[in-house]
Amino acid sequence: MKLKIALLAGDGIGPEVTQEAVNVLEAVAAHGRHSFEFVPLLIGGVAITAKGSPLPAETLEQTLACDAALLGAVGDNKFNHLSPNERPEAGLLQIRSALGGFANLRPATAYKALADNSPLRPEITEGVDILFVRELLGGLYFGEPRWWDREKELAHNTMVYSKAEVVRVAKIAFQLAQKRKKKVTSVDKANVLEVSQLWRAAVTEVAKDYPDVTLEHQLVDSMAIHLMNTPRSFDVVLTENLFGDILSDESGVITGSLGMLPSATLGGKVNLYEPVHGSAPDIAGTGKANPIGAILTAALVLRHSAGLEAEAKVIEAAVIEALEEGNRTTDIARGNIVGQRTVSTTEMGKIILDKV
Amino acid sequence: MKLKIALLAGDGIGPEVTQEAVNVLEAVAAHGRHSFEFVPLLIGGVAITAKGSPLPAETLEQTLACDAALLGAVGDNKFNHLSPNERPEAGLLQIRSALGGFANLRPATAYKALADNSPLRPEITEGVDILFVRELLGGLYFGEPRWWDREKELAHNTMVYSKAEVVRVAKIAFQLAQKRKKKVTSVDKANVLEVSQLWRAAVTEVAKDYPDVTLEHQLVDSMAIHLMNTPRSFDVVLTENLFGDILSDESGVITGSLGMLPSATLGGKVNLYEPVHGSAPDIAGTGKANPIGAILTAALVLRHSAGLEAEAKVIEAAVIEALEEGNRTTDIARGNIVGQRTVSTTEMGKIILDKV
Ligand SMILES: CC(C)[C@H](C(=O)O)[C@@H](O)C(=O)O
Ligand SMILES: CC(C)[C@H](C(=O)O)[C@@H](O)C(=O)O
Repeated sequence: MKLKIALLAGDGIGPEVTQEAVNVLEAVAAHGRHSFEFVPLLIGGVAITAKGSPLPAETLEQTLACDAALLGAVGDNKFNHLSPNERPEAGLLQIRSALGGFANLRPATAYKALADNSPLRPEITEGVDILFVRELLGGLYFGEPRWWDREKELAHNTMVYSKAEVVRVAKIAFQLAQKRKKKVTSVDKANVLEVSQLWRAAVTEVAKDYPDVTLEHQLVDSMAIHLMNTPRSFDVVLTENLFGDILSDESGVITGSLGMLPSATLGGKVNLYEPVHGSAPDIAGTGKANPIGAILTAALVLRHSAGLEAEAKVIEAAVIEALEEGNRTTDIARGNIVGQRTVSTTEMGKIILDKV
Repeated sequence: MKLKIALLAGDGIGPEVTQEAVNVLEAVAAHGRHSFEFVPLLIGGVAITAKGSPLPAETLEQTLACDAALLGAVGDNKFNHLSPNERPEAGLLQIRSALGGFANLRPATAYKALADNSPLRPEITEGVDILFVRELLGGLYFGEPRWWDREKELAHNTMVYSKAEVVRVAKIAFQLAQKRKKKVTSVDKANVLEVSQLWRAAVTEVAKDYPDVTLEHQLVDSMAIHLMNTPRSFDVVLTENLFGDILSDESGVITGSLGMLPSATLGGKVNLYEPVHGSAPDIAGTGKANPIGAILTAALVLRHSAGLEAEAKVIEAAVIEALEEGNRTTDIARGNIVGQRTVSTTEMGKIILDKV
């Protein structure tokens, strides 16, 4: 197995956490007869600074020639004054769009070792294992027309979905549910939005081809409650782009820290892998970043792009072991707790690496 | 003080809970030298059934001639096949729009007596007192064009805000913050949406006129986390329409049940008061509905439309007392707990009434 991976480290803590993910992948390569070639490329704020664009042409071109893309994080307050299409985040949205992956998989899992890190009671989070399937290329993120007319003092965004866009992501959700607890919860706001009515109708139609999977519909506002009250009752949660952004972040509280969460975006020319957390410029370079989100993202690269399921599981098990031994980065440390010690980004990376 | 109140009981549990609110208002009238005249009017599913429209012309006309409107709930699965502009919810959106109230106030408060009802740990919810100010007449709810083209298999909604719409609701948020903990958290998705960039710029401008109030901006996805992790750190939370719908519901878990939450919509021709919960058709008529949301909504009528602050406080204190005595409707009951007893909608109403 030979894999060429575009390395889009990006801004803030992006480079530090990506490095730990790379170390783990290289350990896997060294142990098996696999080889990973990493192609470091600029994206986000660092790309604006170096090349004047959040997604330079050579970054896109070279990424398209890779087998997978591993992204750290983008975003830098320095560029807050720019319009959305010039900011670091635009680089992320442009590469998402160009790579074509429309199904963004985001697990929200409870770890026993971190049960006390969640604001939710342990009896609520125990055993939670949700997989969000967030549509990533449609809705308000990409809808046209979009503008802010400063003279007219008016701004406009467009939420748009075609049936085909809904069908293709729904199929992935149902297929994933078939290998899990066989339940899909589709989220919309069909009591108000026409787009949600199309969404609901399309998902309902797709469901007919998966008679072994139960489909339920939830309104996005109710869902925001249910995810906190009864998270164990969900299996696969299927959402449009913005609802998925909000609800998957909200579900981060189940795990206890956004720094723990990986994601994989499938269905396009090149799969895109990114931890869910942001660039956290305030802690960049301080050793406080949690590399686990990025390391678990590396596991998803192995699972979905390299077909190395066993190796992915080894990494996931190593993460659990590291946590159970009491190792904690700052975001998941809770003061002086017997049996726990606070470790830096690289220390956590090394602890996990040693177990792989 | 003489007040003419449009009574829009609506669907499902709407009529039952509204009745308890009316009882409490009548008790206040009997004790002071106030008089409330209630004008019962049709809205939502019951109006579709009786008059063929979710907001019959006479309902709107008569409500506009009242001093305040008290709404129960609208929504009935029977009408799920209708398009958004024909459904019971359309009656609600139309009356919101016609009455013109743009600032929807939704408190998210923790009650000591209900600390064990929240999925959040008691140390997280303790002392939480958030006031959402949700913009209620703009954004995706009302934006044009909006359509679902079944032939083209494409649907479209529009998120639109003018600066003037943002400014007027922001002013209310800052004024309310001045009487509270002097902090406004404005929520947007300014890293992606042009509408959010206008929103952020307009709120920042308004803030200059309230130098005693601290303004912070949060992205909607991060906010969904922070509300669960550190709810005590928020005072007034200012949002556009859809973000407010999602986040205020999410914050319902702080109180423990949506059935507890009141709302008031100010700034228009006639103030509109409604509990946050929905019509809950599954429990309508079973005595399981929690009337507290509606009763606390009645308190808001007294506060914001009748200028009877002391009387509003009496009702709010009566609710707390009823809870502290261990009275629980089904939604807030937690099995066999010593010192607690499960009561029906009307029993809870009477217990609170007796204390007013
Ligand atoms: C950085 C931002 C554009 C992005 C998004 O909204 O998709 C992020 O919040 C995410 O969830 O990946
Ligand atoms: C019933 C529905 C249209 C309404 C809304 O989305 O505004 C409700 O969820 C609310 O929050 O009042």
